[in-house]
Amino acid sequence: MLTIYGDSISGNCHKVRFVADRLGIPYRWIEISVLKAETRTADFLAMNPAGQVPTVRLADGRFLSQSNAIMLHLAEGSALVPADAYQRALMNQWLFWEQYSHETVIAVRRFHKHYLGKSDDEMDPALLEKGARVLGVMDGHLAARDYFTGGALSLADIALVAYTRLAHEGGFRLADYPHVAAWVARVEKYLGIAATR
Amino acid sequence: MLTIYGDSISGNCHKVRFVADRLGIPYRWIEISVLKAETRTADFLAMNPAGQVPTVRLADGRFLSQSNAIMLHLAEGSALVPADAYQRALMNQWLFWEQYSHETVIAVRRFHKHYLGKSDDEMDPALLEKGARVLGVMDGHLAARDYFTGGALSLADIALVAYTRLAHEGGFRLADYPHVAAWVARVEKYLGIAATR
Repeated sequence: MLTIYGDSISGNCHKVRFVADRLGIPYRWIEISVLKAETRTADFLAMNPAGQVPTVRLADGRFLSQSNAIMLHLAEGSALVPADAYQRALMNQWLFWEQYSHETVIAVRRFHKHYLGKSDDEMDPALLEKGARVLGVMDGHLAARDYFTGGALSLADIALVAYTRLAHEGGFRLADYPHVAAWVARVEKYLGIAATR
Repeated sequence: MLTIYGDSISGNCHKVRFVADRLGIPYRWIEISVLKAETRTADFLAMNPAGQVPTVRLADGRFLSQSNAIMLHLAEGSALVPADAYQRALMNQWLFWEQYSHETVIAVRRFHKHYLGKSDDEMDPALLEKGARVLGVMDGHLAARDYFTGGALSLADIALVAYTRLAHEGGFRLADYPHVAAWVARVEKYLGIAATR
């Protein structure tokens, strides 16, 4: 059986759970706390030398890490990955954009504000500005479509919704991005997860 | 024909060129300067609303961005992508790690030091420490193998070599990571590109 080593407060870890639940893949969840430095123990580093969650142990005992790589592996050949090569390329484009431009702003400000309890003055002021740009890019893209690519929900939506749905915990107002807000509700409904605000 | 909109100083853009050259895909290169804000013009944003290079126009006129997504699209079905599902998953793992944990340290410090001319005091001190960890993870992984995954060169090696081979421009000493240094030389030879140091 699949084992997910994840932190319940991490959107990156939620992604893996969302995909497994959606595809009916049974799994065992082992809670690993980043705040308690449980990703830095010798046992954890033996599974993933990069010291990051999520990390999974596949049914055959082999390990895999990086949330989007795990999703791609679990969902290969499923309806969550577009069959068309160009639409699949666009899905990958959004997956990389999510990790490089979105997570590093939306998830990072949430972590500092919501979990480290920092005041606005203690956080990098560029995060708010970058967040507005990131959410603006998403809102513009979703103005003309229901899902990020391929006309149907794909891993791109799951990757992007993981932290976008929690963006208010980082001080971002999704009400200012109506297409994003409507898309979050759509994806949450599809995944059968409770709305967070 | 493929058109690559790229900045010659960007390792992310080099990746696309390395793959196209290796696979014999003809292309036209259009120089776009990040420092001159040419990624922020209305014309460029119409191609890629995220305002990032590389962006490519495929032979059929459609656009794609994100260096690793472009590589995956161009190299699909080639020897640069492992045929085995698990090895392909590991390749993807390293591709996401490269963008999240490696590029944001190794490439960022190079840009600040080499292109913005910042002194050591003007740069985030955490970058040196994080860079040592990143290069240490790579060195440990390469101690037991010639390439990152699958027993042969894959897109993971091309993604990771793009900025690692230029790491000295960011103040990192590859001589301290002998397995990394040997791997850089190996990949440069495979790709037929000149050694940079």
